[in-house]
Amino acid sequence: MADKIYRVNLNDMSYKIEDVPQEWAGLGGRALTSTIVAKEVDPECHPLGPNNKMVFAPGLLSGTTAANSGRNSLGAKSPLTGGIKESNVGGTSAGIFAKLGVKALIIEGIPKDDSTFYHIHVTKEHIEINPVPELVGKDNYAVLDAMMEKYNKKVAVMSIGRPGEMKMLVSNVSVKDPKGKLRSHGRGGLGAVMGSKKIKCITVDAQNYKEVSYADKEKFKEANKIFTKALQENPISGEGLPAFGTNVLVNIINEAGGLPSRNFRSGNSENAEAICGETMAEKIKERGGSTTHGCHAGCVIQCSQTYNDEEGKYLTSGFEYEMIWAFGANLGINDLDQIAKIDALMDDLGLDAIEMGCTLALAVDAKILEYGDGKEAYRLLKDELANGTPIGRILGSGTGTLGKIYGLVRVPVVKNQAIPAYEPRAIKGQGITYVTTPMGADHTAGYAVATNILNSGGYIDPLKKEGQIELSRNLQIASAAVDSTGMCIFVAFPALDDPKCLPALIDMINARFGTNLTADDVTNLGKKILKTEREFNLKAGLTNADDRIPEFMKYEPLPPHNVVWDFTNEEIDSFWNF
Amino acid sequence: MADKIYRVNLNDMSYKIEDVPQEWAGLGGRALTSTIVAKEVDPECHPLGPNNKMVFAPGLLSGTTAANSGRNSLGAKSPLTGGIKESNVGGTSAGIFAKLGVKALIIEGIPKDDSTFYHIHVTKEHIEINPVPELVGKDNYAVLDAMMEKYNKKVAVMSIGRPGEMKMLVSNVSVKDPKGKLRSHGRGGLGAVMGSKKIKCITVDAQNYKEVSYADKEKFKEANKIFTKALQENPISGEGLPAFGTNVLVNIINEAGGLPSRNFRSGNSENAEAICGETMAEKIKERGGSTTHGCHAGCVIQCSQTYNDEEGKYLTSGFEYEMIWAFGANLGINDLDQIAKIDALMDDLGLDAIEMGCTLALAVDAKILEYGDGKEAYRLLKDELANGTPIGRILGSGTGTLGKIYGLVRVPVVKNQAIPAYEPRAIKGQGITYVTTPMGADHTAGYAVATNILNSGGYIDPLKKEGQIELSRNLQIASAAVDSTGMCIFVAFPALDDPKCLPALIDMINARFGTNLTADDVTNLGKKILKTEREFNLKAGLTNADDRIPEFMKYEPLPPHNVVWDFTNEEIDSFWNF
Repeated sequence: MADKIYRVNLNDMSYKIEDVPQEWAGLGGRALTSTIVAKEVDPECHPLGPNNKMVFAPGLLSGTTAANSGRNSLGAKSPLTGGIKESNVGGTSAGIFAKLGVKALIIEGIPKDDSTFYHIHVTKEHIEINPVPELVGKDNYAVLDAMMEKYNKKVAVMSIGRPGEMKMLVSNVSVKDPKGKLRSHGRGGLGAVMGSKKIKCITVDAQNYKEVSYADKEKFKEANKIFTKALQENPISGEGLPAFGTNVLVNIINEAGGLPSRNFRSGNSENAEAICGETMAEKIKERGGSTTHGCHAGCVIQCSQTYNDEEGKYLTSGFEYEMIWAFGANLGINDLDQIAKIDALMDDLGLDAIEMGCTLALAVDAKILEYGDGKEAYRLLKDELANGTPIGRILGSGTGTLGKIYGLVRVPVVKNQAIPAYEPRAIKGQGITYVTTPMGADHTAGYAVATNILNSGGYIDPLKKEGQIELSRNLQIASAAVDSTGMCIFVAFPALDDPKCLPALIDMINARFGTNLTADDVTNLGKKILKTEREFNLKAGLTNADDRIPEFMKYEPLPPHNVVWDFTNEEIDSFWNF
Repeated sequence: MADKIYRVNLNDMSYKIEDVPQEWAGLGGRALTSTIVAKEVDPECHPLGPNNKMVFAPGLLSGTTAANSGRNSLGAKSPLTGGIKESNVGGTSAGIFAKLGVKALIIEGIPKDDSTFYHIHVTKEHIEINPVPELVGKDNYAVLDAMMEKYNKKVAVMSIGRPGEMKMLVSNVSVKDPKGKLRSHGRGGLGAVMGSKKIKCITVDAQNYKEVSYADKEKFKEANKIFTKALQENPISGEGLPAFGTNVLVNIINEAGGLPSRNFRSGNSENAEAICGETMAEKIKERGGSTTHGCHAGCVIQCSQTYNDEEGKYLTSGFEYEMIWAFGANLGINDLDQIAKIDALMDDLGLDAIEMGCTLALAVDAKILEYGDGKEAYRLLKDELANGTPIGRILGSGTGTLGKIYGLVRVPVVKNQAIPAYEPRAIKGQGITYVTTPMGADHTAGYAVATNILNSGGYIDPLKKEGQIELSRNLQIASAAVDSTGMCIFVAFPALDDPKCLPALIDMINARFGTNLTADDVTNLGKKILKTEREFNLKAGLTNADDRIPEFMKYEPLPPHNVVWDFTNEEIDSFWNF
């Protein structure tokens, strides 16, 4: 049976299962969420009001046997940026949605009775919506346990913790991974949108479904083999990431002088040695954890890990570079165990690592805490933020809002979203991605670090302006397309360096759907997605003036290279000339 | 000697006294501040960073004997709206600036040593800048006392209290009035800009100056007589305002169903009788206060007052309609004495009555306090906000930011500035002014209440859309011009109804400067000011999508008329077709 659009209307607690309109047929993941949001959501609506929608969509290859195809996209108007948002995640939801034949799940409206929170359960051709007063005030792991008990261990779960209930802008939507741990639709405050709709959790039936069908299964298998080999033979996706996880980047980026430290005051951190991937891998091995772990079924990179404490007891997983940078370098905590403890807490609460880390580092400028004080950071999150005290509300509102509350000028945000772990002054291609992507400061939207630092897809000097706009544009077009397939961002490395990788990916799509897509079609899809998103943002009131780096980076040189952000407005705005 | 531009550069603590460029010669007040800000301030700069400027400019007729000409303009990029801001005020500064020959005072940069605050003293052709550590942490009246002791009782003083030091977005710049009480450059968070520049106070020498000169003194006197007569014979500026002050409006607007109550949930307040101008005038008379008081020398309307407490002791003055509405109707405090006590505190701290009142009323939705609890409101301002506690910081960040911190949807702001005391759903012409003025929600920018409610300049049904855009446009053009003369907003009433009033005003300008301005010239000036301001805002990143009423007003009918905001985007955007 053909895939369907599942649509929940919370205004009257009804649902519909609709045929997929022709113009959405070839779309998945980000292409589909952005297309639906652009078509159905008033760009001027209040993102936490009744006219915003949440759109979940698995990638085109999700549910198949393709390596690394398990990413699920969530789209909405972001309450953090005020623009369109797509945030994709590993975990088990993408595969299960795809196997159930859910092309997209659209959630609209707000319940009339907003005195409690609700649970949406999706099964084949059926949706249940029920109040769950017993889960109100609980965090993600308690919800996960309750749902696994109610259904079974395989059920897909998307949930929010207390910060999402409180509509905090740092809150994410958490998703169960294959080991019953959590991954996140992290950025853009999408947990607040879910909270505004009074949805505590969404579950998807993982028992009564069929495997996805293939137009040409043999061709698919063959292409997948080539694709998998490309992933495994690439030095980054096949060696660096499996060995040290994403945290392999701490030393690399620190050496490049681009590791933002102490609220973006330096590109070097004195904590690099203490928090780097090599140190972490050693600790994991000593303590009997695991340096490899896939965030979704079918992952051949296994860049995640299981991190145990000193006594060998499980502490956290999905302990990524961005988290370790944010708390280790930017907030200055030189103790991996302390950061891991915070990571576990943040998973449970459902907080975006980048937004939260930048907010706490900025909170040092507001004299709320001190650099390196991991215990106080933990307490602030556990006791203040999670309980919605005034200081907790302030921290829960994110970096940009904290800056407004305290009248701060050195506020590292683009479109009000906190800047990730690559200094735009010292890795300028990445800076172009931050300012131009319709998503707000986002490293995955066009990972220029690949070519600026990792020599993937050639090399462009990170300290110079030349070539960066074209680099970021090409990467953003490719990433938008890749985000539509369900593939993880790290397929970018073999895709940039191995000429067989991208054709194999396209072959898989064609073999799955019986289509005849070419590389040009994929590029055109990427362009179309970006333009659709940009157009939504313009209608929502964003302009070229929002495609800007924080002003202080234009006049404050960043050590060790003592570089400033030196792109002119005209140069930046030329990004959109395509 | 010709007027000069006085320019302070805080980066190196220097100053210059410059000739007035030809293109600024015919400008004063808002025309001049907006022209200078548009020319000299990067629209994309951080409003609290080193590249914003503060521009003070008296009106064209300030310092003359013209009735009601004592308004001073302050311009900057607003940290509250992100757009251009002009906020004008009575008090003594305009007249003294004009008599000293200060066409404008421009303050730029930020002191390198930001460990303390500074005092700028302006005398004829000379400026002193000195640190004032002894005033740090003091509020406005203490600064006023210190300055009057240092100089004399006539010295003009502009200052900030602790909220301004803390760069809170609700903070204003306070100005001494003729009786040693305070008036405010109230809106747009300009106190935060002054705080960001580490300026605690600015004083202007009121002894060593000359009276302003006139090209034709006799003609000026004659025109002033006609103008004054028009003011005095108008039923509003000559009777209603002198008898009951601005607070005469509570009953009128309540009866029209347009008095925003309980965070804009109704157009009627059950407190109207307790807080109205008639009740207030009675109390004032009983207690030996004064129902008349001018905010600046030469005022013939005297709409302000002196309000005593039950024991006949001075409590506050400048106790205006917006303040009484904000705390009495919108926050629901039914006790004028309690509101007066808050008013006195807010004068001392330097808080914008509209922004603060709307923030506290919205804080009820955030469960921070309850409607009608004046004692708690007082405590929150005195103990929390003034001391910069977390909850104080939240309240100090204004209505829009409070909404973001608590994930609220019913947030009454336009361009992030709180909506004043006239419900846009029920007084639609005023709503058009709120959404279209480059200032953010501002009632003085185009006071359509005049024609919607007060039958001044004809009558246009406040509940219908017809004619409102043209009405608001004409009023905004006229107001921009009037704001450039130093005249108070209430000259609008005779100007709308007495055909002799406006020609007399123009005659005064011509007699002062030896010019030959016509009514068309004045209209063109108003248009040019609006377009200059609009252009700055567009460059700063504001768009048509910022010319919008809060979305909830489009779907939530307002009692008692059960009206919604029903203008289409196209209708609103047609405002700028001139």
